[in-house]
Amino acid sequence: MSAYSDLYRKELLENIIPFWTKNSLDTEYGGYFTCLDRVGKVFDTDKFAWLQGRQIWTYSMLYDKVEANPEWLKIAEHGASFMQKHGRDANGDWYFSFTQNGTPLIQPYNIFSDCFAALGFGGLYKINNKEEHAEIARSTFNRINSRRNNPKGKYNKTIPGSRDLKNFSLPMILCNLSLELEHLLDASTVKNLIDEVLYEVMDVFYQPDSGLILENVCQDGRFSNSFEGRVVNPGHVIEAMWFIMDLGVRLKDNTLIDKAVEIALNALEFGWDQKYDGILYFKDIKGFPVQQLEWDQKLWWVHVEALVTMAKGYQLTGNQKCKAWFDKLHNYTWKNFRDEEKGGEWYGYLNRRGEVSIPLKGGKWKGCFHIPRALYQISEIFKNIPENKAEIIL
Amino acid sequence: MSAYSDLYRKELLENIIPFWTKNSLDTEYGGYFTCLDRVGKVFDTDKFAWLQGRQIWTYSMLYDKVEANPEWLKIAEHGASFMQKHGRDANGDWYFSFTQNGTPLIQPYNIFSDCFAALGFGGLYKINNKEEHAEIARSTFNRINSRRNNPKGKYNKTIPGSRDLKNFSLPMILCNLSLELEHLLDASTVKNLIDEVLYEVMDVFYQPDSGLILENVCQDGRFSNSFEGRVVNPGHVIEAMWFIMDLGVRLKDNTLIDKAVEIALNALEFGWDQKYDGILYFKDIKGFPVQQLEWDQKLWWVHVEALVTMAKGYQLTGNQKCKAWFDKLHNYTWKNFRDEEKGGEWYGYLNRRGEVSIPLKGGKWKGCFHIPRALYQISEIFKNIPENKAEIIL
Repeated sequence: MSAYSDLYRKELLENIIPFWTKNSLDTEYGGYFTCLDRVGKVFDTDKFAWLQGRQIWTYSMLYDKVEANPEWLKIAEHGASFMQKHGRDANGDWYFSFTQNGTPLIQPYNIFSDCFAALGFGGLYKINNKEEHAEIARSTFNRINSRRNNPKGKYNKTIPGSRDLKNFSLPMILCNLSLELEHLLDASTVKNLIDEVLYEVMDVFYQPDSGLILENVCQDGRFSNSFEGRVVNPGHVIEAMWFIMDLGVRLKDNTLIDKAVEIALNALEFGWDQKYDGILYFKDIKGFPVQQLEWDQKLWWVHVEALVTMAKGYQLTGNQKCKAWFDKLHNYTWKNFRDEEKGGEWYGYLNRRGEVSIPLKGGKWKGCFHIPRALYQISEIFKNIPENKAEIIL
Repeated sequence: MSAYSDLYRKELLENIIPFWTKNSLDTEYGGYFTCLDRVGKVFDTDKFAWLQGRQIWTYSMLYDKVEANPEWLKIAEHGASFMQKHGRDANGDWYFSFTQNGTPLIQPYNIFSDCFAALGFGGLYKINNKEEHAEIARSTFNRINSRRNNPKGKYNKTIPGSRDLKNFSLPMILCNLSLELEHLLDASTVKNLIDEVLYEVMDVFYQPDSGLILENVCQDGRFSNSFEGRVVNPGHVIEAMWFIMDLGVRLKDNTLIDKAVEIALNALEFGWDQKYDGILYFKDIKGFPVQQLEWDQKLWWVHVEALVTMAKGYQLTGNQKCKAWFDKLHNYTWKNFRDEEKGGEWYGYLNRRGEVSIPLKGGKWKGCFHIPRALYQISEIFKNIPENKAEIIL
């Protein structure tokens, strides 16, 4: 499998990362530009907390895992310094977005701003060992914990007691964050968090009858027969399953890993577009019309996360279905998302037929994160799998 | 032009209205179901204030203008009674949505719920003369007026003073509402409102350099070079221009009518999809990538409102460009949105190529409103235009 390994590593280091290193640094006000057109030109100067935190993490991870390149450390600290200066309100919650110079634009209504800030500062602390960065990650984590039961706070528009649904995204992200922050939290906090989020994901959101995970369920876990309650986001389910596999490795729990592989395969089969290939963005579990107009689009993160999940599933279980799906996804993804002609970062938004719908390389939601993280992981996974044979590494 | 007139009237009375009359009434809890699949089957029982208010209006309007059919009055009052019972919070603001039995689900964060409630109750009062309905329309109108400067209230996520944009939708809707409620407001209120909204639409949101109207501008009218500031919604612009033409007729202002026709033609040319025909949903005025993933879809309301605008523009000015656009839009719309096979209400959501993307006939945002209103208006307009010749009716 070293052919895949080399291919993904080369794409990461010769195409994707140089694109962000060259185009995303704001040398005037600090932080990262993320609204980059096909050739990397900045078309909008606003900055978004999700993408600042995620890019800090990506460069820190590369420094930690690929090579202690001082330029990467500098780039990670460049983003961190902007966020330290401008990122938080008086409660320590992270604003959603900023003007170029750091003036906050949108209130801290979105708890994922905090999740990705914690991820970024936690990753940076891992490589520079500066206590100030650990402290930001830790205090942000504590705020997330205290906001978990009502993450939208006063911006929640649901009438209390009417149809209080809970959303899959937060437990899903916490599966990943629990391991990413393990080096700076105490052991019992990590253990409790892992127990809780595993229960939420695998017992509350997972639906044994369909073998799928729903985006929203009632507070007590019941199915809600409503637009929100019926929607499945196959990409979310599939991505979450590699977070679960990582937890399975951490806990040495093969049953958990097998279950995650099974759910991921269900979600891939459910989400696969039989007509034009690729993974659909949203589907109604009862087959009713969805409210998301973009339901049939093909998104970069869905596809690269599915590649990671199938690679990891294959590595950990040897399940040949994972290998077959990996090959199929690889062909689809490299053919459609990669910009053969101009190179650099991949496209993000394709229509149902796999044609580029929005020709940006980075924007309000797409930054330096899913693609480099996936390319790195896949290149590592296949480095360790001998040709045509999966190893059970537990 | 009586061929068009007959065709649109027949479609309204033999296809569209029977679909809603047959499928949308909740005889158990009152109000209207709007989530209807291709053949009119209810796939979701939630109720949405926008669509309750709009359907009350549509049936009242038909009773008033087409025929004093007692069934239509009964249907209008059926929706009104549900909304009177369940619609408002203690401040008199309208919730956004409800469960089937009327339990409110989503807080009154959306001022258009109030606009369409006022529209519906105002229209109903016109036909049944019940003071309770006039009172609801009037008090709702007063609340809208007092909330106008901060319509989202506490749900506004923008940091005050950072980039306070104002949105085109409210002044646009008020252009229409000012005339729809004229019979129950005092004359000076109507006059002041018309003066204000005309100024907002034609002097603040209208951009002389591009000849277009922006969706969002700074409070002082300046252009905001941001995702929100750059976006044009051609359908909104075109629809607003027939509201302005109606005001032009009311004020006997030919210059205003001519300007509205000019802006509508600009917006049609700007929004027309050169590749696959139809009107695009969103475009960036600078040609940058938009944030709306659904930017290239073709929506029912955009196309039927454009038909009204072009018909009215032709009727009022004799501009042959309006007639040519009407013919072109007519062919596109009837070919792609109409359900030739199963009949009933038209489809709402097509992809860029004009294929049905979401096969619903009604949903969370699509109800009994744009299509019947447009079909009625077009059939009336062409009734009064002799073959191949436009009349200036002022």
